[in-house]
Amino acid sequence: MDLVLDLSDRGDRAGALYRALRDAVRDGRLAPGDRLPASRALAGDLGISRTTVATVYERLVAEGFLDARVGAGTFVSAVAATPSRYATGAVRPRPGWRWAPVPVSGESAVPVYDFRVGIPDASLFPFDTWRRILAAESRLHGHHPGAYGGPAGLPRLREAIARSVAYGRGVRADPDEVVVTSGTQQALDLVARVLVEPGDVVAVEDPGYASARDLFASHGARVVPVRVDGEGLVVDELPDETRLVYTTPSHQFPLGVALSLARRRQLLAFAASRDAAVVEDDYDSEFRFSQRPLEPLHALDEGGRVIYVGTFSKSLLPSLRAGYLVAPASVMDALLAAKQLTDGFGSTQPQAALARFLEEGLLARHVRRAAKVYAERRELVLDALAGMPVEVVPSAAGLHLAAFAEVPSGLAERALAAGVAVDTIGQHRIGAGRDGVVLGYGAALTEAIRPGLARLARAAGWTSA
Amino acid sequence: MDLVLDLSDRGDRAGALYRALRDAVRDGRLAPGDRLPASRALAGDLGISRTTVATVYERLVAEGFLDARVGAGTFVSAVAATPSRYATGAVRPRPGWRWAPVPVSGESAVPVYDFRVGIPDASLFPFDTWRRILAAESRLHGHHPGAYGGPAGLPRLREAIARSVAYGRGVRADPDEVVVTSGTQQALDLVARVLVEPGDVVAVEDPGYASARDLFASHGARVVPVRVDGEGLVVDELPDETRLVYTTPSHQFPLGVALSLARRRQLLAFAASRDAAVVEDDYDSEFRFSQRPLEPLHALDEGGRVIYVGTFSKSLLPSLRAGYLVAPASVMDALLAAKQLTDGFGSTQPQAALARFLEEGLLARHVRRAAKVYAERRELVLDALAGMPVEVVPSAAGLHLAAFAEVPSGLAERALAAGVAVDTIGQHRIGAGRDGVVLGYGAALTEAIRPGLARLARAAGWTSA
Repeated sequence: MDLVLDLSDRGDRAGALYRALRDAVRDGRLAPGDRLPASRALAGDLGISRTTVATVYERLVAEGFLDARVGAGTFVSAVAATPSRYATGAVRPRPGWRWAPVPVSGESAVPVYDFRVGIPDASLFPFDTWRRILAAESRLHGHHPGAYGGPAGLPRLREAIARSVAYGRGVRADPDEVVVTSGTQQALDLVARVLVEPGDVVAVEDPGYASARDLFASHGARVVPVRVDGEGLVVDELPDETRLVYTTPSHQFPLGVALSLARRRQLLAFAASRDAAVVEDDYDSEFRFSQRPLEPLHALDEGGRVIYVGTFSKSLLPSLRAGYLVAPASVMDALLAAKQLTDGFGSTQPQAALARFLEEGLLARHVRRAAKVYAERRELVLDALAGMPVEVVPSAAGLHLAAFAEVPSGLAERALAAGVAVDTIGQHRIGAGRDGVVLGYGAALTEAIRPGLARLARAAGWTSA
Repeated sequence: MDLVLDLSDRGDRAGALYRALRDAVRDGRLAPGDRLPASRALAGDLGISRTTVATVYERLVAEGFLDARVGAGTFVSAVAATPSRYATGAVRPRPGWRWAPVPVSGESAVPVYDFRVGIPDASLFPFDTWRRILAAESRLHGHHPGAYGGPAGLPRLREAIARSVAYGRGVRADPDEVVVTSGTQQALDLVARVLVEPGDVVAVEDPGYASARDLFASHGARVVPVRVDGEGLVVDELPDETRLVYTTPSHQFPLGVALSLARRRQLLAFAASRDAAVVEDDYDSEFRFSQRPLEPLHALDEGGRVIYVGTFSKSLLPSLRAGYLVAPASVMDALLAAKQLTDGFGSTQPQAALARFLEEGLLARHVRRAAKVYAERRELVLDALAGMPVEVVPSAAGLHLAAFAEVPSGLAERALAAGVAVDTIGQHRIGAGRDGVVLGYGAALTEAIRPGLARLARAAGWTSA
């Protein structure tokens, strides 16, 4: 194959390789029937991990651009040559904006053994109560005119969130410091708009959360991956010129470790000395399975450098699209202006319903109930892993855990063929580092855990049978 | 007053003056009791319109920073010196991001005579039907897991929108070309991210829609105002280096004229010759009061250069936060990636409910019913204006109309004191041009129109009594 692949843009090598190969297929540089290099060979040529290449191949196979033939290799599929609607239109995205959307969990069929990360069990959600509240609040809403709301969100919801994070997470927030957002992703987007200039260094955890990396990169940031060890983010290795640190201190994504108290203090001291900001993404630590949680960075922060981001996607449902941020007053005007420019304001009825849900203590009740179910599933996962050649990463919260292990190439695809949906740690890495698996137990049905992990072990070659 | 005001940033002079004065009050450069220059004098010093200065003073008075004393002038208020929470926090927005959110309609009390622009009459909305549909769709939704949705929106809603714009607006769209957004504002934001590079020239109409101007400026665009005449945007005056044209061809905002067919063709030819993109914002032309509408730019566009933007904020309710764009396939991948990075995806239940609302023909029915009410109100406004020294701008659609007139300084504030909410044309201008009033009849109760306009005429000095 005589093909120049440019992987220089952004930090996301998997994404760059994906786009480069897809575009080559689309515009005919790779013709139907062409054989692709073995993943090991291509990885060597490009200086990236074999897992990355394998993941990209899997995705292109899943999307129909490539065919994988057992024992023969990977080929450009015949269908891929069909003239695509994507060629139409004269306007083109600006340079650096040749992104493609990442496939999301809801778009494919639900696998039988579902260890996907970050998906709560929707069957635990009190839909009847939610419907009753939504109906009541939309009736009240009928009395108001069709006006445009403020960008910060309904005052009543901001108050409910301030109380909820104080009680549940030890974050002391004034309602004026709360902005209601459309999930974590919008909270990060507002922060990036307001704080990140093109060329600024944004430090992220590696392995880490790809959607945050991609977001900061889309704002022109130089995204620098920083190592994670048993105490969380290795603060010593943050670049001196860091303007913003994105971290998941309560339950590192995806490894699950907590940032140690020493590291928390070190990180805040670093931010103060470098005049940097810190984004604390606390996405799922409402679910706790052991001792008292460490103080959030936000609570330890005396300098007003931490922006705390939370979401109801894990504690309630992703489809509610409800999240929030808690920010120092010094950036509040700019964040609100950014929110207003971005999408005006949040939808009113669902915000009112969510406020009432929190006011009536239904969030706390749901989290208590769901945590019991998740704790049981977590124990089942840990029990099953105990007999396998893996090293479980210690964690005490959240909806997933990680385990270091030998991972054969193409594990995710092989597992899926056996009905098991699972992420590898490598999928979440930019640089080199130990591989393994990330096991979500939010969506995994309790009775599916043992047989699912047995199938995974066979697919991974961890057991002989 | 010895105060240096820096109005160099961005195109938004009113915003810059507002922020400069507010900050001066906050940090004590303007002390309580200080008298501000007369608006005419300050306007002369700064080389901006007196209306702009008056508008900014009004806003600062409304927010408590300034006091207006009849016959004496405008002073820094005593309360304004209270130490503000806004001083706290160590992180600061990046340079160029010293925006403050613009006050929105829903934040203040509803005036008795409400001629605000762009607000539909919520009392016409079929809340009971909407609640029934929302409840039904959230019941169905209960069967699905708590998964993450795709960034384009629910496929069912994209199909319903494609049918609706074909039937209602003559826009031929494939469902694959539709992206569901959180209102017009998010549609514009996605377009700006994907198409506008810092420094790019974005041409906007003047007078025009400030939220669009501000948005493009926030992405680093050089926003260039271009004159509007009786045929709409003066295409001849578009700068040669224009990369993107933002226009409201069906019902120019705020003047209300339609872009003539000759100008439409000229604009598309301009875009083709300069390799520019065109954003067609069709925000309220579902409501039509005369002849067949002109073909949308999107329908005339053979080159794939037009992105069509629509909203349900006027045809249904702003609080639904539902809009969409129709874009050529060549930018679709990038737009979807931008949507995914921005806020993930739209909330599922309301999208399903909206889809069913459209499928059952309830949108078309609502628009027909509401259009009758708005037509009656529009006639009442035109009747009342017929006896006043104003020149009504011809228009045939939408929820507001404009009239050129002599407008005394501070009219909006004076009118509000008489219970009348109204915009001046000058509020929507960047450059010089004829002033006048913009009269929304969406929120104006039918029986309030005559007395409201009589009060406005007195406040404006158009009548003696």
